[in-house]
Amino acid sequence: MIGRTHHCGTLREQHVGEKVQLKGWVQRRRDLGQVIFLDIRDRSGFVQVVCSPEIEQEALKVAERARNEYVIELEGEVVARDPKTVNDKIPTGLIEVHVKKFTILNAAKPLPFQIEADTDASEDVRLKYRYLDLRRPDMQETFKLRHQTTKLIRNFLDDELFMEIETPMLTKSTPEGARDYLVPSRVHHGEFYALPQSPQLFKQLLMVSGFERYYQIVRCFRDEDLRADRQPEFTQVDIETSFMDKEDLLAMTEKMMAKILKELKGVELTLPLPRLTYDEAMNRFGSDKPDLRFGMELTELSDVVKDSEFKVFQSALASGGTVKGLNLKGGAGKLSRKEIDGLTEFVKQYGAKGLAWLKVEEDGLKGPIAKFFEGDIATSLKTALNAEVGDLLFFGADKKQVVFDSLGALRLKFGKQFDLIDKDQFNFLWVVDFPLVEFDEDAKRYVALHHPFTSPKKEDLDLLATDPKSVRADAYDLVLNGYELGGGSQRIYQRHIQEQMFSALGFTPEEAREEFGFLLDAFEFGTPPHGGIALGLDRLIMLLAGRTNLRDTIAFPKTASASDLLTNAPSEVSVEQLIDLNLSVIGKKSEKVNA
Amino acid sequence: MIGRTHHCGTLREQHVGEKVQLKGWVQRRRDLGQVIFLDIRDRSGFVQVVCSPEIEQEALKVAERARNEYVIELEGEVVARDPKTVNDKIPTGLIEVHVKKFTILNAAKPLPFQIEADTDASEDVRLKYRYLDLRRPDMQETFKLRHQTTKLIRNFLDDELFMEIETPMLTKSTPEGARDYLVPSRVHHGEFYALPQSPQLFKQLLMVSGFERYYQIVRCFRDEDLRADRQPEFTQVDIETSFMDKEDLLAMTEKMMAKILKELKGVELTLPLPRLTYDEAMNRFGSDKPDLRFGMELTELSDVVKDSEFKVFQSALASGGTVKGLNLKGGAGKLSRKEIDGLTEFVKQYGAKGLAWLKVEEDGLKGPIAKFFEGDIATSLKTALNAEVGDLLFFGADKKQVVFDSLGALRLKFGKQFDLIDKDQFNFLWVVDFPLVEFDEDAKRYVALHHPFTSPKKEDLDLLATDPKSVRADAYDLVLNGYELGGGSQRIYQRHIQEQMFSALGFTPEEAREEFGFLLDAFEFGTPPHGGIALGLDRLIMLLAGRTNLRDTIAFPKTASASDLLTNAPSEVSVEQLIDLNLSVIGKKSEKVNA
Repeated sequence: MIGRTHHCGTLREQHVGEKVQLKGWVQRRRDLGQVIFLDIRDRSGFVQVVCSPEIEQEALKVAERARNEYVIELEGEVVARDPKTVNDKIPTGLIEVHVKKFTILNAAKPLPFQIEADTDASEDVRLKYRYLDLRRPDMQETFKLRHQTTKLIRNFLDDELFMEIETPMLTKSTPEGARDYLVPSRVHHGEFYALPQSPQLFKQLLMVSGFERYYQIVRCFRDEDLRADRQPEFTQVDIETSFMDKEDLLAMTEKMMAKILKELKGVELTLPLPRLTYDEAMNRFGSDKPDLRFGMELTELSDVVKDSEFKVFQSALASGGTVKGLNLKGGAGKLSRKEIDGLTEFVKQYGAKGLAWLKVEEDGLKGPIAKFFEGDIATSLKTALNAEVGDLLFFGADKKQVVFDSLGALRLKFGKQFDLIDKDQFNFLWVVDFPLVEFDEDAKRYVALHHPFTSPKKEDLDLLATDPKSVRADAYDLVLNGYELGGGSQRIYQRHIQEQMFSALGFTPEEAREEFGFLLDAFEFGTPPHGGIALGLDRLIMLLAGRTNLRDTIAFPKTASASDLLTNAPSEVSVEQLIDLNLSVIGKKSEKVNA
Repeated sequence: MIGRTHHCGTLREQHVGEKVQLKGWVQRRRDLGQVIFLDIRDRSGFVQVVCSPEIEQEALKVAERARNEYVIELEGEVVARDPKTVNDKIPTGLIEVHVKKFTILNAAKPLPFQIEADTDASEDVRLKYRYLDLRRPDMQETFKLRHQTTKLIRNFLDDELFMEIETPMLTKSTPEGARDYLVPSRVHHGEFYALPQSPQLFKQLLMVSGFERYYQIVRCFRDEDLRADRQPEFTQVDIETSFMDKEDLLAMTEKMMAKILKELKGVELTLPLPRLTYDEAMNRFGSDKPDLRFGMELTELSDVVKDSEFKVFQSALASGGTVKGLNLKGGAGKLSRKEIDGLTEFVKQYGAKGLAWLKVEEDGLKGPIAKFFEGDIATSLKTALNAEVGDLLFFGADKKQVVFDSLGALRLKFGKQFDLIDKDQFNFLWVVDFPLVEFDEDAKRYVALHHPFTSPKKEDLDLLATDPKSVRADAYDLVLNGYELGGGSQRIYQRHIQEQMFSALGFTPEEAREEFGFLLDAFEFGTPPHGGIALGLDRLIMLLAGRTNLRDTIAFPKTASASDLLTNAPSEVSVEQLIDLNLSVIGKKSEKVNA
């Protein structure tokens, strides 16, 4: 092998006359018989090289055998291009390399898809040949951005005196939260480790240890059914601090996000970031992670319609529910009757029984339920919804959560469908004052909305024993463009409050002791007030890179059925391996679930 | 809560007269009735504070309730100490803080052990209360060193244009290497993921993708029986590069080590680091990770003793083995006859059948086998072993590996026992030219000494098909003070060589295809020459911190039976969890293995 003096994409006019040694891939090859032009690519970009008999016959001969994606090395001289062949569009376009020596290091068969930014290969093919997919320039850019982002986060946190400390991957399965991935123990018969859903307890224990400022960019795991923005393993920027209150932590997190946006996207964030309470976010946008890049807020109509004779509204209100409206400005001309009817199916996914609507026309409201909304009530409705001729009004009437979910989803759907969203915007906000617990209809008990270690707000502490559902948590979510980028809270740090919390969640004292005894003990040995936050790194990169698929931000992602199409994991293992673990597989293998 | 203006350990004379707000733990408390002195500790160190009626009665009252390890916050004024009470030994010893306001944030029960550098608590107690153990100053220092080391490594690799890229934790179980930790799949009936023993295949695929320089500080897993210097999960600094040859990679790694040693230990390494071939390391030190901080090399004696009448030596030589000697200088006066006899048991652990020995006295060699070594042969033996009166000579005669292992272990034992090792030294070397494969007596086939992706040395390539055991690998281990700090190699990057390698390891083409087809395929799509190295971070920190137990470098380590005594992992899981995974536990639970 020869050496390497330069990277291809860095050659410029200033190098003219220099002898260079390059290594890389054949990106493109034009064979004009007595002269061959090749674009040679490495990590830094590409440069045009020329082989011809005038320069060196031997090199030309070897280059004749080269094909796209061959790995080569070459020696040559940087030469200014003829003014007629200068290419202004590429950084190396003023020069080319005249090749004196050309060596093929490894050949390449024709590829299943081209190495170019926009590929029409199916995602399955891209995942099976992930090592080729990652060669594409947009993927290279995404992972460069990911590297830069983590580097910037680490440097920021180093400057803020945080210490990176690693926590275990083989941990204990706990009853709260999502489903754990389990790892059978070979040594301890019938026992299992769990892969961490987050390092929550360990980072709290590090605060008990007095480290004061901990961070880790750490892999976490959830064995849940996957969606486009979920992966079984994901990476979070995990932060915990002692003696910092909520305001300190929010300010520091904002400062970090502002630095990322400024340095990597050239965007200036205005700080402090806006905040919405959970109640406000739900009432105005039907979501606890509202996308504020466009308006179209939900309008409370319970008062306005309380005297209407439309039974759907009446029964919703009578059973303690709510009626809300959404105004699609100019929607009358945008959606056909058939499309409007189709939306009923859409909102049914969110538990709505139907979708009432009205068109605003010159001579009043029109539509199947228009007869209930005439005269004064029509006027009040139009005023409340700021409705003008041509607008299309939609209504949700049900239990609050159903109305939030269905109209919130409808709002987002319209936002995308009618291009109301400025895609260049990075719209951050905090959602605060979440409820501490919610009632789980399946389990017939309260469960923690975030996790059981979240502190109640001080002013709501007395309600914890008497009326848990009205207790607000000292918790905060960071939202970006309608995605939950992360969440955090001040933690409980006193044993008696943690015990009250477990009790509110339906744990007996024995169960609490069995599962979390070490934490309760720790609280009695000098635990400082502490709190923290965890940010989803994959999601952050997805949004920074302007992508919509989380898989594009992970080098080797899993499919929606948690398969790796490249290595074919998971896979069957040997009987010996199962015997070592004292396990047997029960039931019959059904059809393999497809990716 | 009040704010925090300073960290305790940073207060100096220059702060005298300033009002400060501090937060931290009560480290020590002396109650003199009308005045209480407390040492208040935070992450930065500690400072003495004073409560008295002259300063503020209310603060004194609260301080009366404080005890060791209580969490407190205070306001006060920095005051120069009376010259009689100045303490030169601590950084804050010139000043103290006169307390105006004192608040208890959290109480602490008496601790199971004291928060001090040298604890006599048992390791089990330390692990059960790990969050308190980590409060001890030597542990705080170790994790600070760990943070600084990883930071320095990251910065170094960033400067060398490496990109941090994450690889999966849920991967495919492969038949080579150590035992995998398995993770059952819920979605794919009867199938399992494996936790990675290293990201080997993924980092090679990243080279196929053209990233050229990859690094990751990454958790790896091995389900092996544990020793003091092994943990089920461990962290490695994982590096892979394209187009760099062995010399480039070794030079870069040395440069990184030199930077760590210089910046964190103030030690100048002389580069390039010394190298030994595997053969030389084994022959001279009986180890492929020799501790060169002391001499006492093994001496080859096969020629010298070939004519002796001692049957043990004769039969070792006749069956193709070897005879080697070790000279414990002045050993005759150091070891009693009983102790010498006891060493036989020691070497038996390494497969030796016995341990021959001789004392060098004025009138010749003495000992049970002295009658075989008189006259010329005694002279030759003494010359070969550089023996003087008072020396004690030990002999190994057996198959080569047994002689290496037993005398190598004996050498280390003597080195420690007789304090021949300079503990302040950081003795690095490379061991190179390892055999590519070794014969596995259990499996009755060759197995890769490193892993099946290690490239043979070019000059030995022809032997791969005909005589695999004499092929040397293009592999290199970095050794520090007798520990293998890491290892790397140039990789196979051509399909036909990888296929030959699998064939040498006894894989049929179908088996190779089944297990590693994706890699073989990748080699045909333009794979660059590449190589890399992985360094054990835990072990590096252990050696940098001058510790002997790997557990002291891991925040939440496992015991020798892979248990976490803090959280009590692994543990039993619910029947529902097992049903979800289609698994049942077979056999009876035997006595729980103790940690």
